[in-house]
Amino acid sequence: MVDKPKAVVLFSGGIDSTTTLVIAMQRGFEVYALTFQYGQRHAMEIEAARRIATHIAVAQHIVVEMDLRVFGGSALTADLEVPKGRVPSDMTHGIPVTYVPARNTIFLSYALAWAEVLEASDIFLGVNALDYSGYPDCRPAYIEAYQHMANLATKAAVEGRQHLTIHTPLLHLSKAQIIQKGLELGVDYALTISCYEPTAHGEACGCCDACVLRLQGFAAIDRKDPALYCVTTEGTR
Amino acid sequence: MVDKPKAVVLFSGGIDSTTTLVIAMQRGFEVYALTFQYGQRHAMEIEAARRIATHIAVAQHIVVEMDLRVFGGSALTADLEVPKGRVPSDMTHGIPVTYVPARNTIFLSYALAWAEVLEASDIFLGVNALDYSGYPDCRPAYIEAYQHMANLATKAAVEGRQHLTIHTPLLHLSKAQIIQKGLELGVDYALTISCYEPTAHGEACGCCDACVLRLQGFAAIDRKDPALYCVTTEGTR
Repeated sequence: MVDKPKAVVLFSGGIDSTTTLVIAMQRGFEVYALTFQYGQRHAMEIEAARRIATHIAVAQHIVVEMDLRVFGGSALTADLEVPKGRVPSDMTHGIPVTYVPARNTIFLSYALAWAEVLEASDIFLGVNALDYSGYPDCRPAYIEAYQHMANLATKAAVEGRQHLTIHTPLLHLSKAQIIQKGLELGVDYALTISCYEPTAHGEACGCCDACVLRLQGFAAIDRKDPALYCVTTEGTR
Repeated sequence: MVDKPKAVVLFSGGIDSTTTLVIAMQRGFEVYALTFQYGQRHAMEIEAARRIATHIAVAQHIVVEMDLRVFGGSALTADLEVPKGRVPSDMTHGIPVTYVPARNTIFLSYALAWAEVLEASDIFLGVNALDYSGYPDCRPAYIEAYQHMANLATKAAVEGRQHLTIHTPLLHLSKAQIIQKGLELGVDYALTISCYEPTAHGEACGCCDACVLRLQGFAAIDRKDPALYCVTTEGTR
């Protein structure tokens, strides 16, 4: 029997990365889930990620601590107000203040380090081009450039034992299509947290960009979002 | 009077990065020095870096803590023996075990994050192609690919306010030429530490790859290395 190929999956515990993780498993990979605790307000995400990784039974789950606050510059890591309501999804209206500088570049670089140690050639990232709220490091041209760079960066690639592929299975899906896909694969979205400012009890605010996107996604396929909200959201979208 | 342009310099406190830092200043940049404390044995480097940054009077010096040991895989971060003696400098003999997976990729990604926050377009990295001991992420093709990716990664690049350049002023210099250049620019190499295994008093071992390269560099230009060694090195090279 041939061993399954290994894949590193960037995994936050939200809808997109949880769906991505299950897609990687469905495609036959042994999954190594990588989560970052980077001084963000929503540390609740980390606990959700741990529960999901255990529930899904990944091969290994590593939580890397880092402090991106040393550089300042973002509402998700600095003491700024998180905006309420939907942020425009294209970049003609600028980039939201929830943007963290070079976030995916840093996260992918850690994934690359782990992939090299594991002798894995595959990295999964749950970005999508439709709902990406204007983050430049979610676009296809960026992902392609990263993959090209990665194949010049590692010992294994230089020695010809590794050809890195960055998989972005959600890239062209809407939030509704992502949720539909995950439900077909048996994802329990009650375990996932998307909110930028959950309560201490893990209830989502229902108002931030991430909550609105999520609620709209479930509404579009006529499903109820199983997440806990601190206010009732039925009939409000 | 026009403000100086800002540059982020990756800065370990060794010969190469200290020379690179001074070159960046000579080229008219306001220098932001970035050092990583990543669980390596030679934490003495961090103290050297702090002393040099103060001595040279950089605009700001940030030390970022990270733990690359979570992934294992290298003598500099795991509990493996550091090899004694010169490691072959080309890759036909393989890559040394002192290799840290994806190290420059991770370091440059943090530099990119800080550059974005500072609105800096320039990053300096003290890699060189002649003495690079076989690290794939020091080669020119890698640096070019990284720069291309970086220009697709940031908010500022997307908005046209930033065109990132990764400067590698040492790329085609030998260790002797680097030292010669630094001495011309007034670098005090007594402050720098290169050794992979310095003593608790900051004395270099004189035997590891980094020490041997350094001693050979000074010998080639008939200068005495001002660093402290735990054994006398005079006449031995």
